[in-house]
Amino acid sequence: MIVVMKQHSSAEQVEAVVKRVEELGYKVHLSRGEARTIIGIIGADDYLIQQDTFEVLDGVEKTVRIMQPYKYASRDFTQSSTSIPVNGISVGGEKIVVMAGPCSVESREQILETAHAVKEAGGSVLRGGAFKPRSSPYSFQGLGEDGLKFLAEAREQTGLPIITEVMSSEDIELVGDYTDIFQIGARNNQNYPLLKAVGKTSKPVFLKRGISGTIQELLMGAEYILSNGNMQVMVCERGIRTYETATRNTFDINAIPVLKQLTHLPVVADPAHGTGQWEFVGPIAKASVAAGADALMIEVHPNPSKAWSDGAQSLTFKRFGALMDELRTIASAVGRQI
Amino acid sequence: MIVVMKQHSSAEQVEAVVKRVEELGYKVHLSRGEARTIIGIIGADDYLIQQDTFEVLDGVEKTVRIMQPYKYASRDFTQSSTSIPVNGISVGGEKIVVMAGPCSVESREQILETAHAVKEAGGSVLRGGAFKPRSSPYSFQGLGEDGLKFLAEAREQTGLPIITEVMSSEDIELVGDYTDIFQIGARNNQNYPLLKAVGKTSKPVFLKRGISGTIQELLMGAEYILSNGNMQVMVCERGIRTYETATRNTFDINAIPVLKQLTHLPVVADPAHGTGQWEFVGPIAKASVAAGADALMIEVHPNPSKAWSDGAQSLTFKRFGALMDELRTIASAVGRQI
Amino acid sequence: MIVVMKQHSSAEQVEAVVKRVEELGYKVHLSRGEARTIIGIIGADDYLIQQDTFEVLDGVEKTVRIMQPYKYASRDFTQSSTSIPVNGISVGGEKIVVMAGPCSVESREQILETAHAVKEAGGSVLRGGAFKPRSSPYSFQGLGEDGLKFLAEAREQTGLPIITEVMSSEDIELVGDYTDIFQIGARNNQNYPLLKAVGKTSKPVFLKRGISGTIQELLMGAEYILSNGNMQVMVCERGIRTYETATRNTFDINAIPVLKQLTHLPVVADPAHGTGQWEFVGPIAKASVAAGADALMIEVHPNPSKAWSDGAQSLTFKRFGALMDELRTIASAVGRQI
Amino acid sequence: MIVVMKQHSSAEQVEAVVKRVEELGYKVHLSRGEARTIIGIIGADDYLIQQDTFEVLDGVEKTVRIMQPYKYASRDFTQSSTSIPVNGISVGGEKIVVMAGPCSVESREQILETAHAVKEAGGSVLRGGAFKPRSSPYSFQGLGEDGLKFLAEAREQTGLPIITEVMSSEDIELVGDYTDIFQIGARNNQNYPLLKAVGKTSKPVFLKRGISGTIQELLMGAEYILSNGNMQVMVCERGIRTYETATRNTFDINAIPVLKQLTHLPVVADPAHGTGQWEFVGPIAKASVAAGADALMIEVHPNPSKAWSDGAQSLTFKRFGALMDELRTIASAVGRQI
Repeated sequence: MIVVMKQHSSAEQVEAVVKRVEELGYKVHLSRGEARTIIGIIGADDYLIQQDTFEVLDGVEKTVRIMQPYKYASRDFTQSSTSIPVNGISVGGEKIVVMAGPCSVESREQILETAHAVKEAGGSVLRGGAFKPRSSPYSFQGLGEDGLKFLAEAREQTGLPIITEVMSSEDIELVGDYTDIFQIGARNNQNYPLLKAVGKTSKPVFLKRGISGTIQELLMGAEYILSNGNMQVMVCERGIRTYETATRNTFDINAIPVLKQLTHLPVVADPAHGTGQWEFVGPIAKASVAAGADALMIEVHPNPSKAWSDGAQSLTFKRFGALMDELRTIASAVGRQI
Repeated sequence: MIVVMKQHSSAEQVEAVVKRVEELGYKVHLSRGEARTIIGIIGADDYLIQQDTFEVLDGVEKTVRIMQPYKYASRDFTQSSTSIPVNGISVGGEKIVVMAGPCSVESREQILETAHAVKEAGGSVLRGGAFKPRSSPYSFQGLGEDGLKFLAEAREQTGLPIITEVMSSEDIELVGDYTDIFQIGARNNQNYPLLKAVGKTSKPVFLKRGISGTIQELLMGAEYILSNGNMQVMVCERGIRTYETATRNTFDINAIPVLKQLTHLPVVADPAHGTGQWEFVGPIAKASVAAGADALMIEVHPNPSKAWSDGAQSLTFKRFGALMDELRTIASAVGRQI
Repeated sequence: MIVVMKQHSSAEQVEAVVKRVEELGYKVHLSRGEARTIIGIIGADDYLIQQDTFEVLDGVEKTVRIMQPYKYASRDFTQSSTSIPVNGISVGGEKIVVMAGPCSVESREQILETAHAVKEAGGSVLRGGAFKPRSSPYSFQGLGEDGLKFLAEAREQTGLPIITEVMSSEDIELVGDYTDIFQIGARNNQNYPLLKAVGKTSKPVFLKRGISGTIQELLMGAEYILSNGNMQVMVCERGIRTYETATRNTFDINAIPVLKQLTHLPVVADPAHGTGQWEFVGPIAKASVAAGADALMIEVHPNPSKAWSDGAQSLTFKRFGALMDELRTIASAVGRQI
Repeated sequence: MIVVMKQHSSAEQVEAVVKRVEELGYKVHLSRGEARTIIGIIGADDYLIQQDTFEVLDGVEKTVRIMQPYKYASRDFTQSSTSIPVNGISVGGEKIVVMAGPCSVESREQILETAHAVKEAGGSVLRGGAFKPRSSPYSFQGLGEDGLKFLAEAREQTGLPIITEVMSSEDIELVGDYTDIFQIGARNNQNYPLLKAVGKTSKPVFLKRGISGTIQELLMGAEYILSNGNMQVMVCERGIRTYETATRNTFDINAIPVLKQLTHLPVVADPAHGTGQWEFVGPIAKASVAAGADALMIEVHPNPSKAWSDGAQSLTFKRFGALMDELRTIASAVGRQI
């Protein structure tokens, strides 16, 4: 970290900063320019230092973090990319994993039918929400445990591992009794009690970027989980909020290569939430694979026009099948398979 | 709600939408233009209709909501502005309420000293965090119950009611044993399990706008609380995330008159988070009062340069006292007092 | 267009709106709901109506535009996609066009050397800036006419058509004497005098989306050119400004399929400005082709570490050659070629 | 400026950076940490150094600018705040200047009537657009020179100096023949040929922040004008583009105290564009004065419901008069007058 002093900071102010750095056990490198004094803080575990600590000292103009504020999530922590085994498949390996299913589990029939269609088209994981975060208290809030049971039955019939969202630390035990992967939704990317709690479980965690979260906040969310002991985290780009209203969100395709550079964790793309319209799911799914995504999450529904949620961004079985064929070609063009 | 059909939608598609509207118990008003057919949905409780329900139907281009998607939070629900009594003071009345105190409770001495200073300067409520949502797992996470006890002691000594954050539904009982007002932080504006849970308590709730939340999402968060039975909600503008990096957040001053128009709930301004630098807290606090805020939340610390969190945006006692004097003049210029 | 009246609008107010609509030569469709009256404006040239005209009338809550506010740029204007011939190549056809070259023309040698390298690697158009919009008045502002001459010489030697930026209507004649395609930069997306002026020329125009421009504004910019008579416009996604700071801009990959749906004009992707770092240019270029882009603009420099501008996002000749090979594979996976 | 080297940068890479710094005539301060080497560039005219120059060198991770990239616009350039005389009034002094008038000049009668009303209510400058930047080519584009003539006649009748927009360097002479202050609109904040051209005139320039411009870009725009010799620049906050759609723009109230800290130039607030609705103009105008604005620009129209542009955000004469009274009280509460 670097501490930049104000233009006319006094010798006492500089001394006070130096003293504080040394109290914390770091070494100091002083650089006195014509206009500014700059204080380098030298130590190996830079991520532990809070910028606040120095920004509030008298005479300090700003601090600049040189290294990343996370440790376990960093590409520096482990050289090889992490791949996460889930019931016989592996997320983060050469094979691109497609997780597909409806936004919400609506009935036993709906999820079973979808599970078979997903499997047949080549999907590897079944998704479906049983606890739903909805912006209106008057919207369908999910089937709860019944939904989990239907998902489990679908897994039994198809062999597909399942992923479903957990919204509250109180539900972790219940959801954990059924799911293979905990999904943490965009609205909970900074729900720290929840992140700590899934960090203490031993199941893989699928962490979505916040609705307006930065890439760094996504990795700090992962760090909350990793630093609590659970090293099986995959991070998901799902579109961010911008001023553009032509699509529901702006899918941040840049985040895919940026994340691959910053972290060893598997990177997932969610083109349905990234666009909000099924017509655009295909192009963005293909783009994500071309840009280096390790996995995709895709919303599929037997009859999107009757879906209880997110129908507009869900694919029919037929469209999903056709997209899987296109994705295989793209995957092969970038040296991978699906 | 209005349903706009695509340019070449068929008679069957229009018919299907009409049928769906009538199934839901609403009346239909059809408008066939040269280019588009538009279907008006007529009924009194528009907020219950999900846009999704119609957007997924074949031939539909988009839907437009005419009325607000909330009921209890709306200015239409009750003509007069709501004021919320808290231990002898009232938030939302003619008198502007100033809630002040440190970001985090750091020690018994710190919070007691601050409480007395806040009281002396004319503050009405004491704030202080015991459970802290921090972006890094390596940062100070709050004193927990000890912090709550120190706050309660400060209330006893000064008579000031207290406000403190609750981050998880599991902590509501504990925090509720001490606090007068539940604070829901910006990261939890869409933590629906938590909103439902405080909605079932009988204590006032102070709800912050999400870090990148819309005004509508803020009111939908309030609606989650209100519709669960707790009618004592105040909403807080605290700055939003934009592309501008000169300040920590962009304080959305527009939100103050907009909220006063849309809702009957008291509107609070938080200039410390809205700017991130103490030098700007004063101008933005004054601007907020000039724009119509009912209350202010201000961070005050005995020694900001040693604060464990948010020191850069905290005022010293002396600066807080001077600001209170300036605020009194502005309040009087807009026909209120502090 | 739809006019939504306020909840308690009077019969006189509704009548005044109706009168205004009829004065303008449109038909009215009235829809009186329990809560609101909605007035549909029916006519074929909806894009000519200003929303302002109605929003200011008493009793009006808001207006909703049903059709697009542009005519010539719309996919409805002409069924087939437009392809633009430029000196023997065609932008917008089955073959994906790669425009490449340095950010700035720096010298005769630099541009000639680059032109040959671009040609050899399979690029179709040579880019290079002679008039540079720079955020600092103290930065290099371009070689001006000398730069144009060097570009022309490079065209002569290689046969590659050239594209270069014009920043002011005063320079159109000069730049037009040399260039094959006028480039309008992101900062000039709403420079209407400039758009009108290139609209009166007969050369193809390459129009970049504004730095924080919406997709609709990009098409309105195109409409300014098209409605002045020049039908050869290509539109370019080049990243937008968001709160994310990990990359220089956020490349809006969604814009590619959205633009392909809304307009018949060719769609170009500029991954260099969309990311700001050469490491990410490759992944985003591939993603753009996978998502349906008709052309790419790529910054190439003989020695990026000595570039006078944008070196950080420029490829070396070697990297450009390798990327072209990868792009060929992706293009073929989506049924096109390069 | 600081150059941060990559974690494993070589001694040769560091040497190359040092050599480059010294070639440019600056001194170097090297700081070798355990993890990173940091190179301080020491010299008085930091604003002349381009970050690009160093970011492209091998082994460089990033550069951090310590000082501002502008000179003449900086508060450091001149200690006292600049006030700009305009025909007997002064912008930037103790008295807060109110510039008011219609969005567009629509007719001789309209502007004369408005001028008298503005004067009577206590406004000091008359505004009115004769050249209008409109997002649609089908919208009213302004009366051109006729509009300028009507403005000049209004000045003659009332004594109020006038301000009007210039959109293109080709129009500077014409507009300059009439106006007292050149207005540069939000869409031209980075129109560098235009900024250079008004920088060569001797009339005051009113520069609006870009629609999504940063505060730094606003000051860099001012620097373009100042460094060309015209030292009479006032900068204007007019709302920025964010994801929030409740108002037309998000008025960045923070920008007012931030600008007052960074620059000696007068700071103007434009609440009409900052909100887009006349109901909110009053609260935001008052907030701006409370936050420290030196001047206000307010849209006033004899009959907003018939305005040719921006009627929704324009005040009637009566509302403008009432607002002026309120503003006087607020101004006096912050120790100024109007």
